Amino acid sequence: MRVTLHVCTTCKANMPLAEGETPLGARLYAAILAGEAPEGVQIVGVECLSACKEGAAVALSAPGRWSYVYGRMTEADAADILSGAAAYARAPDGLVPWRERPTIFRKQSLARIPPMES
Amino acid sequence: MRVTLHVCTTCKANMPLAEGETPLGARLYAAILAGEAPEGVQIVGVECLSACKEGAAVALSAPGRWSYVYGRMTEADAADILSGAAAYARAPDGLVPWRERPTIFRKQSLARIPPMES
Repeated sequence: MRVTLHVCTTCKANMPLAEGETPLGARLYAAILAGEAPEGVQIVGVECLSACKEGAAVALSAPGRWSYVYGRMTEADAADILSGAAAYARAPDGLVPWRERPTIFRKQSLARIPPMES
Repeated sequence: MRVTLHVCTTCKANMPLAEGETPLGARLYAAILAGEAPEGVQIVGVECLSACKEGAAVALSAPGRWSYVYGRMTEADAADILSGAAAYARAPDGLVPWRERPTIFRKQSLARIPPMES
């Protein structure tokens, strides 16, 4: 199963951006791309996940699975985000046992959406 | 196009629940069901959208479309939620022009997720 990790590349985490400063989202996206992409996970940058007050935000989704959005992420979380995405890809239904989720996924969930009916 | 409006029925909006009190989510779900379901919208109750701190939460989704999660909803918002869901169902790609979105959708977005690649 191929799952998608969306990373908001424009997120400024609700803060003003100094001239020449790279947005937090772009820094997070770069840090994630610099890591090793887990098997079955495609990493896609996206302009705005509409979670600006709780950014930077990332989302995990795949057909037939629950989708998840996580917030308040920084570059320091890149490795944990990748390992959480790997666990999501491995879980047959996308439901990762609670204890196997990275702490940032347990504590910084913004929302989840049930699988779509097609 | 048939779209789904998910309503969290268990949401307590991060507050303790008094004995015998009906959770805010259940009250919101009842208020939405008491309204007129817009054409092309199916209303589905769900236990927890993992947006507890910003509840009550609702989500709009459909195959091939952006998904949206909105928060801090109360029973008083039921009519606006239904009209927002109707606009989402009518928009061919689910992208409702900004000015045609209910104010609660403009101001209380928790997150959106890009369409899935199937």
